[in-house]
Amino acid sequence: MWWEDKLVRTLRCRLLQKPGIFGGLLSVIGAEQAYVGEIKIIHMGTNYMDRDITIFVDDEAHLERVIKAVKAYPRAELLEVRDEVLEMHQGGKIAVRSRYEINNISVLRKVYTPGVAEVSLLIKNNPAMVRRYTAVRHLVAIVTDGSAVLGLGDVGPLAAMPVMEGKASLMETLTGLSAMPILLNTKDPDRIIETVVNIAPTFSAIQLEDISAPRCFYIEEQVQSKVDIPVMHDDQHGTACVVTAALMNIFRETGQDLKKSCIGVIGLGAAGLALSRMLMFFLDKPVKGADINPEASARLQQAGGLVSDLKEIMASCQVVIATTGVPGLIKKDMVRQDQIILALSNPNPEIEPEEAMAAGAAYAADGKVINNVLGFPGIFRGAVDANVPRITREMLLAAARAIADYAPPGEIVPNALDRGLHRSVARAVARVAMEQKLNRDDLTGYFD
Amino acid sequence: MWWEDKLVRTLRCRLLQKPGIFGGLLSVIGAEQAYVGEIKIIHMGTNYMDRDITIFVDDEAHLERVIKAVKAYPRAELLEVRDEVLEMHQGGKIAVRSRYEINNISVLRKVYTPGVAEVSLLIKNNPAMVRRYTAVRHLVAIVTDGSAVLGLGDVGPLAAMPVMEGKASLMETLTGLSAMPILLNTKDPDRIIETVVNIAPTFSAIQLEDISAPRCFYIEEQVQSKVDIPVMHDDQHGTACVVTAALMNIFRETGQDLKKSCIGVIGLGAAGLALSRMLMFFLDKPVKGADINPEASARLQQAGGLVSDLKEIMASCQVVIATTGVPGLIKKDMVRQDQIILALSNPNPEIEPEEAMAAGAAYAADGKVINNVLGFPGIFRGAVDANVPRITREMLLAAARAIADYAPPGEIVPNALDRGLHRSVARAVARVAMEQKLNRDDLTGYFD
Repeated sequence: MWWEDKLVRTLRCRLLQKPGIFGGLLSVIGAEQAYVGEIKIIHMGTNYMDRDITIFVDDEAHLERVIKAVKAYPRAELLEVRDEVLEMHQGGKIAVRSRYEINNISVLRKVYTPGVAEVSLLIKNNPAMVRRYTAVRHLVAIVTDGSAVLGLGDVGPLAAMPVMEGKASLMETLTGLSAMPILLNTKDPDRIIETVVNIAPTFSAIQLEDISAPRCFYIEEQVQSKVDIPVMHDDQHGTACVVTAALMNIFRETGQDLKKSCIGVIGLGAAGLALSRMLMFFLDKPVKGADINPEASARLQQAGGLVSDLKEIMASCQVVIATTGVPGLIKKDMVRQDQIILALSNPNPEIEPEEAMAAGAAYAADGKVINNVLGFPGIFRGAVDANVPRITREMLLAAARAIADYAPPGEIVPNALDRGLHRSVARAVARVAMEQKLNRDDLTGYFD
Repeated sequence: MWWEDKLVRTLRCRLLQKPGIFGGLLSVIGAEQAYVGEIKIIHMGTNYMDRDITIFVDDEAHLERVIKAVKAYPRAELLEVRDEVLEMHQGGKIAVRSRYEINNISVLRKVYTPGVAEVSLLIKNNPAMVRRYTAVRHLVAIVTDGSAVLGLGDVGPLAAMPVMEGKASLMETLTGLSAMPILLNTKDPDRIIETVVNIAPTFSAIQLEDISAPRCFYIEEQVQSKVDIPVMHDDQHGTACVVTAALMNIFRETGQDLKKSCIGVIGLGAAGLALSRMLMFFLDKPVKGADINPEASARLQQAGGLVSDLKEIMASCQVVIATTGVPGLIKKDMVRQDQIILALSNPNPEIEPEEAMAAGAAYAADGKVINNVLGFPGIFRGAVDANVPRITREMLLAAARAIADYAPPGEIVPNALDRGLHRSVARAVARVAMEQKLNRDDLTGYFD
């Protein structure tokens, strides 16, 4: 999207309340090549009005030019320039809250001593009761070492926190789960594994996030083998799930048969390898894959895929999915007529969708459309409510189908902020859990 | 207190709305030797009223007798019997919440991609910004292995969760901090240390809870030496702080001079050793201590205390503080005239306060009066807001003074649910941080 790499700022302006003055101000901003976003009325005076005007600019220098122009406009006064994104992040985006207001001794005695002893003994005698009488039932860890943050790379755990909090906020908003970021002070895979295993009793599931490949494969596998709650590296399986959902709908829209198409995956990191695996499981046939790293190619081969290269995939595959992190890798002249191209690297794709379409592609999209927020909240809610020990590929495929089915006609993916979507994904995951007899007790929570 | 070891249940009864009928029902309950607590009106019908009547009984058999008697009372119908404590614990007592409702794409773009990238880069370039723009600023870990849960002993991490959630609920309710329980799957001190250090970047402080002695001493010291945020084992220093506050007021009330008194501590576990140390620091003279474990006595000696025994302490000390976990250890005939006895083991003290008073003590209290809830919320709030790398004994002593000063005239301790108390404790701690020049940046949060 055009706004993805822009700076967003808010100008608070006081304008004389006369026809044409506001339009004049917007024209001044437009003349400086800045885009205007939301506009809010802050105060209506007798002969003036204060408005917050959101603008999109290229960089700080561009912002300075716009501010200078606005200041030069005689009928408006620039009151302040604000960065609302930073403002919203002040103090963080999540908080741990008490579900009860403890404002009298009677409540205190129930939620703390002496009442709490009864609950502790109940759990001591029957550990499964921890899911009924504690927050463990809805707590999910979002664990990262900050080594592969989307679009930013290895920024470390602290700089990853805003992203983790964003995911936690979304998890609560969309499904009601309590997601807690856990920032790791180490990048050593074995220390990560031990740490996560050691804190696992606190949670009903573990979401691994933004951990770089190939470490992520070993870490996920090892942690899952040592705990009896679901562990999912979202960059792998969440992405695979959402890409599969999008492909289902692209083929539904174009009236083609996905099972008969040749599929090529360029870039076999966390996302590329996982989506290759998922598509091979779904379609029951190999996909072609390419990576400059021979070890990555070897992993695909081991999973049953065919090792190929960029040129051959572009020349031979009807569907091309790129997850390389290399902007502009796919050139216009590589695009085949009627090809389907998902260039998923963020923030800058391997080829801009518009460019791919102009070069003859039947369909093209980038990583902003195909976003993990469509998947992970419902997948975790379903797995947690069904109380399963792990998330199976059947559950992920069911989640992909649920996402695809929820998209409105003509759209490739549904609205990620629609809670009904996540409820539907959760139900689909839980249904598979029942079919696979993986539930460890009755469904709880979301389906109450 | 009389109700500490009772079962609490709620009877929902429908009563004919005629004078004398409700009184008759309470008399029936009283005749079965059950106590009546809160009574709520649930529904007022035309000729009847539904009420929830909280009762306190000795055990399940006693409950059965009360239920039988209520059912036999002709003018009331018993609608249901409920365990409100368990009900309140259903689904746990805490939740991780989003501070923003993410219900439109505009908010999503600010709190998640693409807006979040700006905040991540800001933190990458200046890690101190993590305190301004993420929840790290108000997150405190409450870490336990469940090896020494108050009154229950080694019940393990899962059974400790209701207690940890209770502390987290109190932390939020009383100070606004976000406290997150972390349950450890290991009891090995070195693995605990490594795990806590590895997840430390997530938090602004670490509260160690209910970890057994002597492991707790080594764990606290090692974790604190490896992280630059405050680490405090509440069972040690929280208890020491609150006991010191109570002693200050007891001496204020009795008009005596604490600094001139002989103080004896019976039981040198986590609480006993820490409060010995704190009193020696405060009074600048040794205390006497006794423990059946020679290693515990050796630790006291190393800290500057005098090794003694139960009999000698009871015979020679004006102030006796017992933290042994042995109910009834102190016999009536051991109590000296005008002695001050704090028998702190929970739920059953070394001597019941009433018994000690009857035997001639000038003042006696147990662990229900002298509760850690008075201390830890404000201590952590102060330390976190002052952004200190550790909690010093000067800070703890200032906290003790603040607690003592906040008690109303004639009372030994203040009301633990009074937020003003915790604000006052936090201010005292932060003030010492400034005096000691331990603040790493300006005060934030509570004092904004």
